[in-house]
Amino acid sequence: MSHRATVDFLLHDWLNAEQLCQRERHAEHSRETFEAVLDLSEKLATEQFAPHNRLVDTHEPEFDGHAVTLPEVTPRALQAFSEAGLMAASKDAELGGMQLPTVVEIASMSFFYKASIALAAYPMLTRGNANTIVAHGTPRQIEVFAKPGLEGRTFGTMCLSEPQAGSSLSDIATKAVPDVAGDGSGLSWADDPLGPRHRLTGNKMWISGGEHEMGENIVHLVLAKIPGPDGKTIPGVKGISLFIVPRKLVKPDGTITATRNDVALAGLNHKCGYRGTVNTLLNFGEGKFPVNGQAGAVGYLIGKPGEGLKCMFTLMNEARTGVGLGATMLGYAGYEASLAYAQQRPQGRHASAAGKDASRPQVPIVEHADVKRMLMAQKAIVEGGLGLGLLCAQLIDDEQTGTPEQAEKAGLLLELLTPIAKSWPSEWAQEANSLAIQIHGGYGYTRDFPVEQYWRDNRLNMIHEGTHGIQGLDLLGRKVVMNGGKALSVLAERISQTVQQAGQVEGLAVHANALAGALQKVGATTKAAWATNQPDEALANATCYMQAFGHTVLAWVWLELALAAKAAQQGGHWCASPLGPGFLKGKLAACDYFFSYELPKIDAWLGVVSRRDMTCAQAQADWF
Amino acid sequence: MSHRATVDFLLHDWLNAEQLCQRERHAEHSRETFEAVLDLSEKLATEQFAPHNRLVDTHEPEFDGHAVTLPEVTPRALQAFSEAGLMAASKDAELGGMQLPTVVEIASMSFFYKASIALAAYPMLTRGNANTIVAHGTPRQIEVFAKPGLEGRTFGTMCLSEPQAGSSLSDIATKAVPDVAGDGSGLSWADDPLGPRHRLTGNKMWISGGEHEMGENIVHLVLAKIPGPDGKTIPGVKGISLFIVPRKLVKPDGTITATRNDVALAGLNHKCGYRGTVNTLLNFGEGKFPVNGQAGAVGYLIGKPGEGLKCMFTLMNEARTGVGLGATMLGYAGYEASLAYAQQRPQGRHASAAGKDASRPQVPIVEHADVKRMLMAQKAIVEGGLGLGLLCAQLIDDEQTGTPEQAEKAGLLLELLTPIAKSWPSEWAQEANSLAIQIHGGYGYTRDFPVEQYWRDNRLNMIHEGTHGIQGLDLLGRKVVMNGGKALSVLAERISQTVQQAGQVEGLAVHANALAGALQKVGATTKAAWATNQPDEALANATCYMQAFGHTVLAWVWLELALAAKAAQQGGHWCASPLGPGFLKGKLAACDYFFSYELPKIDAWLGVVSRRDMTCAQAQADWF
Repeated sequence: MSHRATVDFLLHDWLNAEQLCQRERHAEHSRETFEAVLDLSEKLATEQFAPHNRLVDTHEPEFDGHAVTLPEVTPRALQAFSEAGLMAASKDAELGGMQLPTVVEIASMSFFYKASIALAAYPMLTRGNANTIVAHGTPRQIEVFAKPGLEGRTFGTMCLSEPQAGSSLSDIATKAVPDVAGDGSGLSWADDPLGPRHRLTGNKMWISGGEHEMGENIVHLVLAKIPGPDGKTIPGVKGISLFIVPRKLVKPDGTITATRNDVALAGLNHKCGYRGTVNTLLNFGEGKFPVNGQAGAVGYLIGKPGEGLKCMFTLMNEARTGVGLGATMLGYAGYEASLAYAQQRPQGRHASAAGKDASRPQVPIVEHADVKRMLMAQKAIVEGGLGLGLLCAQLIDDEQTGTPEQAEKAGLLLELLTPIAKSWPSEWAQEANSLAIQIHGGYGYTRDFPVEQYWRDNRLNMIHEGTHGIQGLDLLGRKVVMNGGKALSVLAERISQTVQQAGQVEGLAVHANALAGALQKVGATTKAAWATNQPDEALANATCYMQAFGHTVLAWVWLELALAAKAAQQGGHWCASPLGPGFLKGKLAACDYFFSYELPKIDAWLGVVSRRDMTCAQAQADWF
Repeated sequence: MSHRATVDFLLHDWLNAEQLCQRERHAEHSRETFEAVLDLSEKLATEQFAPHNRLVDTHEPEFDGHAVTLPEVTPRALQAFSEAGLMAASKDAELGGMQLPTVVEIASMSFFYKASIALAAYPMLTRGNANTIVAHGTPRQIEVFAKPGLEGRTFGTMCLSEPQAGSSLSDIATKAVPDVAGDGSGLSWADDPLGPRHRLTGNKMWISGGEHEMGENIVHLVLAKIPGPDGKTIPGVKGISLFIVPRKLVKPDGTITATRNDVALAGLNHKCGYRGTVNTLLNFGEGKFPVNGQAGAVGYLIGKPGEGLKCMFTLMNEARTGVGLGATMLGYAGYEASLAYAQQRPQGRHASAAGKDASRPQVPIVEHADVKRMLMAQKAIVEGGLGLGLLCAQLIDDEQTGTPEQAEKAGLLLELLTPIAKSWPSEWAQEANSLAIQIHGGYGYTRDFPVEQYWRDNRLNMIHEGTHGIQGLDLLGRKVVMNGGKALSVLAERISQTVQQAGQVEGLAVHANALAGALQKVGATTKAAWATNQPDEALANATCYMQAFGHTVLAWVWLELALAAKAAQQGGHWCASPLGPGFLKGKLAACDYFFSYELPKIDAWLGVVSRRDMTCAQAQADWF
């Protein structure tokens, strides 16, 4: 109940999402249609995803040399998801979509992430894949490769990393050459209606959903380099292009054939968690499945040559905020589980000045201060993280359907917040999951309870779609300095508005002051980091900067939520709900928690950044 | 190499362990004998433990209804350990021991913890069990139940928790009644040479090593309550007594019979990590193995009735520092693995003001600032943690063989530091393991690399042998206030000496100031917490207090190590070693790291304690 109620609170008491229905694109919608989608999502997630979350952990994907086997619950859950039309929830009606605002679509996804992140990863990837084709593809590419994905008939992947190139995408070695010899269709490579046809050769690592027998096809989006006339590729990211590579060949009219493209599974990765999402090493063009007698995976160029990374970043940015929300919802799942456990587990007694009376019954552990602290920390992390995730989703709405001024600001803010939306929940919802285990004591460490799996699953999130370190460099090295610091100014303006508003509200003024101070420190530290204009000095502690920046952003989110809670208290509608006045008091307490326990941590992180501390950066190899 | 060298540095450049050989008990020893034991330990751990660490994770103990099966590598590794005489390394010669100082015994254990914590848990438990019997048992009990353990012939457990009583030991329900009906020996219960004979009934949870077929017997140490004449037990810990309960019955002369005692395996616990240590739910006295026709597990009282918890704390305190060192060494294993990976993994290039030249070869990731930061953090955590572990071990030596004044101070300091020695590595070496995964990127999240297992294994350490929350209450509720704050004064005196010394050393004076400031803040916060003399206010944030206290203690350890490194630089012996001058520079850099990046974190933790912040403690159930 708490999750759904909190979503309603965030959407309506805070983000005022109903206003989006005044925009032409969403004119058919209303709070009622939003609620219908959320009701359906919660029901499907609870009934079709959550019950199988442990099973997909214990029954990992298997490869017998011919086919990858997944538990049968996997296709069943995903079918239920797409049959409900959720895959295309925010898409144009002409693409079969509901034209819901992104913020509602993402709110809907939160239920699935919480229920089973490993199952929800499939639609997340497929949707991102389809979105990228919609954004950069030709009408035919959209019709043939994106639409079936949005209908839940096919699945999508993103193929960026290679065994030797993870964080450093400049170093990918997969090559694409024009398919001069032909694929048997009789069409010349340049005239193929599906796009300029190439043959790809190379290995792609960490490909989630890379091979399985679900759906009618898998549509891979693959980064590769087109060699120049001298046979050489351009070093760096400028030489990278993007290709659509279907697992089974597709006719120009969209008919999916039974013929395998030359994409072969080289192996499954066996992970610590997230085991229900099949993760693969794929060999493209090794000749296992020759097309028209030739080795080489058939792929269709999407977008312009050399602009592959730019196109892929449509997917990547979406994936990054998706990863962040996934991390948050794993945290949420742990919060709910540990709250339920704490309410029913009797252990210990209250201490008084006179000691403890062991002859009295034990109390449920939710009554112990330290357990409450661990619950409040989780609450502040997961509800704040969900707030951040929905805020970013609404920024996408503003970017797409807002006024030009709204769109510009939203775009800048979204770029700035993406590394935070990805990194902050990855780090802190992981910590929340650890606290959920802790509340369970020894039971939490066993596989008889769900929390250890949430914790294992969550550990991936600081790694994939750009590591923590990469996010820090993106934030301090690019985002806060781009356009002369314009994005940072937009954020500062928004935060200052909140500070001003909260400064006049009883109980929040002290937090408003603290947030103003934090914002000032972050600004000063940004300048101090770049004072010498030396990237190696400025960025030596970029991760610490990101940690402080993230805590400041979340403090802002919490102050916003506290303002919304205060307003709602005036309105009275929550107090009259079955949740009672405690619901809003809890929001205010979580805000207090964040400002008391969390925000003060930023000083330690900012200190090393503003001093441009080179203790680590200058450490020599033989010191370790 | 680094681990062994660091042990030598800690033992000799810092703790001056060789001086212990001047004490009569260790007169046969010298630096050479210490080194022989450490050489042997490193070799055995590397050859007999480390290679099996993944296997004991993937091949969990199995129970077929009759017997528990462990991988055959488990008894083989443990046999190698005990055949080397390491089980009794510090024990009296008459107990078959080598009379080594505890600090050397613990240094020896560090190699086994690092190689395989799950395998090393067996000797750790068996040794603690035997030590408890040696400390509180009769000569016959020592001969019959402790000595075979120290010889590696039998195994030991500690049976405290019950399904309904974990942190709250007052609530154990296992009962012990005099064995009036007899066990078939013909001896009356009161006259049994093995101790007052009782029959025990109850369930014990989380018992590591509780059931297996290794060795000749398992000796359980079991907490139980003896009902009074009215059949009722005394509520609280005062009613608890301690019993020796052998798995197979033992004759008064020590002969182990083939007859099972009434101790039955009720189930195995399936954990997230630490899977190589069998963990059990045991039913005592359920009648599965009746003795002399009667249900009830035969157990011999050890120590006095009602003093069971006091006796058990011999084992518990040893186990707590052991848990801490185990956590540290898991961190160490991850540090070594991630350092090796970072040195060989090429990825990315250095940034310069002109950008990156993608046509140049990639650099090993150890050259990136953020990777160095993650390595330095790990180094500071694991080497500092090892220092703390050895310091505590040497306090045991001082308590046992020092002058009366040394012994008194060492005892106080050890009591004060035990919750830190347990909690700090449990929390921070867990973080170190997470950083080790992070350095590996996606590879670190797979089970093809060892670091994800270290991370899973380590998560138990904040839970068992007293949770993090319990340690915080012990520290702030008991240890810093006991004897009018005498233990805290002893620590403050030691820290002040270090501050004074370091204040005169170039490069360390600034850290000395910071440490003096931290000590002052911890002292003031202790007073502020207790200013109202209300335990619920003082202890509301006891965990935060412990975190700050721990960081302060570790800053002290690091300043001590930096002083030792500076002195060693003068001496020149390390510079001449194959490790070269980098070895000591690394110690100084880790000290700089700790003072720059870590110590400043204490302000945020202490703030809530000194304000007696009740945000969490006063949160109501319906706020979550």
